[in-house]
Amino acid sequence: MSELEYALNTFYLLISGAFVMWMAAGFTMLEAGLVRAKNVSEIVTKNLGLYSIACVMYLVCGFFLMYPGDSVYNAYFPMIGSTWGMSLDGLTFNTDLGYSDAADFFFQVVFVATAMSIISGAVAERMKLIPFFLFAIVLTGFIYPVQGYWKWGGGWLDAIGYTDFAGSGVVHLCGAAAALAAVIILGPRTGKYGSDGSIKVMRGSNIPIAALGALILWLGWFGFNGGSQLAMGTIGDVADVSRIFANTNTAAAGGAVAALVLTQIMYGKADLTMVINGALAGLVSITAEPLMPSLGLATIIGAIGGIIIVFSVPLLDKIKIDDVVGAISVHGIAGIWGTLAVVLSNSDASFGTQLLGIVSICFFTFIVSYIAWLLLDILMGTRVSVESEIDGLDKTELGIEAYPDFSK
Amino acid sequence: MSELEYALNTFYLLISGAFVMWMAAGFTMLEAGLVRAKNVSEIVTKNLGLYSIACVMYLVCGFFLMYPGDSVYNAYFPMIGSTWGMSLDGLTFNTDLGYSDAADFFFQVVFVATAMSIISGAVAERMKLIPFFLFAIVLTGFIYPVQGYWKWGGGWLDAIGYTDFAGSGVVHLCGAAAALAAVIILGPRTGKYGSDGSIKVMRGSNIPIAALGALILWLGWFGFNGGSQLAMGTIGDVADVSRIFANTNTAAAGGAVAALVLTQIMYGKADLTMVINGALAGLVSITAEPLMPSLGLATIIGAIGGIIIVFSVPLLDKIKIDDVVGAISVHGIAGIWGTLAVVLSNSDASFGTQLLGIVSICFFTFIVSYIAWLLLDILMGTRVSVESEIDGLDKTELGIEAYPDFSK
Amino acid sequence: MSELEYALNTFYLLISGAFVMWMAAGFTMLEAGLVRAKNVSEIVTKNLGLYSIACVMYLVCGFFLMYPGDSVYNAYFPMIGSTWGMSLDGLTFNTDLGYSDAADFFFQVVFVATAMSIISGAVAERMKLIPFFLFAIVLTGFIYPVQGYWKWGGGWLDAIGYTDFAGSGVVHLCGAAAALAAVIILGPRTGKYGSDGSIKVMRGSNIPIAALGALILWLGWFGFNGGSQLAMGTIGDVADVSRIFANTNTAAAGGAVAALVLTQIMYGKADLTMVINGALAGLVSITAEPLMPSLGLATIIGAIGGIIIVFSVPLLDKIKIDDVVGAISVHGIAGIWGTLAVVLSNSDASFGTQLLGIVSICFFTFIVSYIAWLLLDILMGTRVSVESEIDGLDKTELGIEAYPDFSK
Repeated sequence: MSELEYALNTFYLLISGAFVMWMAAGFTMLEAGLVRAKNVSEIVTKNLGLYSIACVMYLVCGFFLMYPGDSVYNAYFPMIGSTWGMSLDGLTFNTDLGYSDAADFFFQVVFVATAMSIISGAVAERMKLIPFFLFAIVLTGFIYPVQGYWKWGGGWLDAIGYTDFAGSGVVHLCGAAAALAAVIILGPRTGKYGSDGSIKVMRGSNIPIAALGALILWLGWFGFNGGSQLAMGTIGDVADVSRIFANTNTAAAGGAVAALVLTQIMYGKADLTMVINGALAGLVSITAEPLMPSLGLATIIGAIGGIIIVFSVPLLDKIKIDDVVGAISVHGIAGIWGTLAVVLSNSDASFGTQLLGIVSICFFTFIVSYIAWLLLDILMGTRVSVESEIDGLDKTELGIEAYPDFSK
Repeated sequence: MSELEYALNTFYLLISGAFVMWMAAGFTMLEAGLVRAKNVSEIVTKNLGLYSIACVMYLVCGFFLMYPGDSVYNAYFPMIGSTWGMSLDGLTFNTDLGYSDAADFFFQVVFVATAMSIISGAVAERMKLIPFFLFAIVLTGFIYPVQGYWKWGGGWLDAIGYTDFAGSGVVHLCGAAAALAAVIILGPRTGKYGSDGSIKVMRGSNIPIAALGALILWLGWFGFNGGSQLAMGTIGDVADVSRIFANTNTAAAGGAVAALVLTQIMYGKADLTMVINGALAGLVSITAEPLMPSLGLATIIGAIGGIIIVFSVPLLDKIKIDDVVGAISVHGIAGIWGTLAVVLSNSDASFGTQLLGIVSICFFTFIVSYIAWLLLDILMGTRVSVESEIDGLDKTELGIEAYPDFSK
Repeated sequence: MSELEYALNTFYLLISGAFVMWMAAGFTMLEAGLVRAKNVSEIVTKNLGLYSIACVMYLVCGFFLMYPGDSVYNAYFPMIGSTWGMSLDGLTFNTDLGYSDAADFFFQVVFVATAMSIISGAVAERMKLIPFFLFAIVLTGFIYPVQGYWKWGGGWLDAIGYTDFAGSGVVHLCGAAAALAAVIILGPRTGKYGSDGSIKVMRGSNIPIAALGALILWLGWFGFNGGSQLAMGTIGDVADVSRIFANTNTAAAGGAVAALVLTQIMYGKADLTMVINGALAGLVSITAEPLMPSLGLATIIGAIGGIIIVFSVPLLDKIKIDDVVGAISVHGIAGIWGTLAVVLSNSDASFGTQLLGIVSICFFTFIVSYIAWLLLDILMGTRVSVESEIDGLDKTELGIEAYPDFSK
């Protein structure tokens, strides 16, 4: 490998990582737009906090747990279980990786918060701040790295041939499974489900910033999927990365169009929140295999993702799983679809192995998360009081209203 | 061409394309901020939908119509008129292009929505959702690709020497001409123009996100203009791309400063919406020739763009062309100026040929669009009812208010 | 140097510059979110205007003053004191720089507005528009370039060994010192400080866009710090840039976590505006030396920055320095800390020299700015009337309300 190829690889990984970091803004805007005005500052605080905690925890122990065999670790982290003292020699030519050590760490660390961001949206409007952050420590420092190791760290899921290019399962399904555990422990928002089976619509307070959030995520996903090729210096690699960019974009478009057309047909009116979630579901769906499908197949895979969530979101409401922003549908159900859809274009993947991967990630994450949430619930309570919920978490949990100048 | 030059070219094109995709968020925020609160969700839906539809339609037939002679097409699209089955061999070394096939498609597909985004702003607050999306299919699948072929696909405008580097004419003027046709068919918003010649100011509901939209577009324009060099691997190419970046930035700054100073002088108060549109007009003005001008000339070209719209926006109001966000002025009038301004610095361009290009693009797009809008108007009506307009399109067309928690 | 290394360097610098330009959106959103609703359009106008003015003034004379010995200048700017006619030969292989001339100019020009953006936040809600823009001309055309020359142009601060990688001192402290001068001349907002020593909390009107602003800045900072390496074509350079990316991210995370935990402990509730400013303070703190610290040390440097502003913001309030968004604390106090923190990891830097740099930049900028603000105050008054302040600057200075549809 030439010095310049190494340089180009590294630069590409850094830019991809910056795009993934930008997804933190996407989740923040999406969730801030989809909660009620009285809970906006609180969800913003959770998003800023969780991203920051994820970065620190992954540094302290997550990276080590996820990539114990990584050459970066072996060469540079003498303290077991700690990347804290990471001080890389600027002149090392790490041809094992094909790019700089610190770029490797940077690209990995920005991924971690994604899983936790999924949770913040699902548990919005009723969870206390402190147990949320404590769980963020557990998920980003331990749960995510351990199951991430199974596939990307070279663990058993990798060994049996489970295929997950950029993480429909490892990232999105993991986050959704932990979110499901949290939502079950927490219960639905007060007044959401009537005893007569009625479902109260609780509208998002700022639709344009929710849409902005979705478009930020769309942009960031080019780094998320495109960067996961991890190489950009040969004709083959750049052709692959190019196809990943084109497929990622077209899957999102397919998901949005499918949700748009379907809600127009089903309800007589297009449902914007479904269009937003349809685009995101398209993105999640193509994430496990953004490389192999043709553009047409990628569009269809995304469109099916969009269709899935149009049915999944009301279905979860029916069984009283109160997921405020639809995160469990978008990242969980579409994540399962995406992981299975790998077999449509990648002949190396088998349906059984993909299913085993899904089940393993789901069960492990759900069970460990459930125990963690339960402990937090016993120790300090995870849910705010009904009064606090009615007054809004901005006032009671935080003391900073999001829009103090706009009357309600 | 070396493998690494090919890789760098491709990477540069992908990043440029991602920046152009990001412009979808720019148009969405700009338009969401400049319409009244009761029409915000609707305009957001139109923007998300049109971008997605553009991606799908360009895949289905647009790319084929615009680049029928493209080596990508010849090699990989066996089905006439369809890129749907595009499945590129990852190892092809396409030295005709100098970059990967899929990167070529990606960079082209993200451009298409821009023209349609221009229309959504002009027809805001009174057009039905479904005919808008049907027209999006026509424009992005047929009108834009056909006139785009004339220049960029190697058609007759290219043959006679019409010069349009990144699309002041091909993209911006095309969108503005279709918008003009739509606005004429639709008519102005109810109450906008009094019978006594008075003009009612209908204020945008969220100025900071309108400004955010403009700044997103400013950023995205580096991909739009900078990427259009299509090569980044030689000293000459990188010098060109660098000049394009610097000129694009300075033209936007020139447009903003000119509009700021001019409105301060003319009205005694700076007009922020003019500053926003001035920056955008500066960007449109430099788009036809961002390479050849000196930094000083680029600033002046942008500043003239900014000055133009300060006069053009009220002028259109005077002749009762109700363009909600000023899109026809910014993309049309400044687009004409930019296309003509090519002759100031590029000796290969002639005033007559530039004018012929402008007239051809305008007439073709306007006439075909006018017929399409007219047919849609006859078939299903393009305009919402007066009651719907007064209640707001969010309620009547969509059923989702943008800001349900803020009283009005 | 090979042609491709030169190309990669240039591309990297252009992308970095685009990220820095994007920080203009960050400051705009941050400040628009943290002022009251009645002053939002005005602060947005100031931000769009100052960025544009900075670009024009740096072109007219700033670049020349800051880099008089630059090979770009020597070769291409025959008119003394003017880069206006900059028309670069596209085929020059400028091996002195290692990247294209115009990329050099572009990367420098986007930096300039940062210093001025710091001021707009501090003086918000009470300063007139015109003197603000006149001062922007002075700062971006003269004050910033002159003290910038001392270090980055090869002046006396550089000669004595003052170390400031990406500008904790040269950019952030400079802006904060000018802001302090402005705030002293202006005085606090009416009603901010009671005669009984009480401090009135004046809440920001749109918390999610303030958070968006912070996240935009976080993203842009990868270009700000990462780009300042100015080279990306060797193994050593890419390793350095990678470490800068990773350290920049972790310092921001450290700052946010520190402010989150500290305000939770001190006040019993996490303070979101402190978390936002903590992240920014972390970024400012690592800017003078983002390369040498280990990841752990970078996190701690950022965390100390976050801790500093939790104390600094109320302290400035106590001495009646009314800094609306906390800019003087974030960019000034954390800027001083960052400049001094260089000695923790860079053995070439000495505490005394760093201190001398801080004092020189502060005094020069403060004194010249104070004189300029004083002259502006005498000539035209810098402060709006009390009535204007109560009614809001959007109405009185601008005539465009930011949120006309939301009642107050």
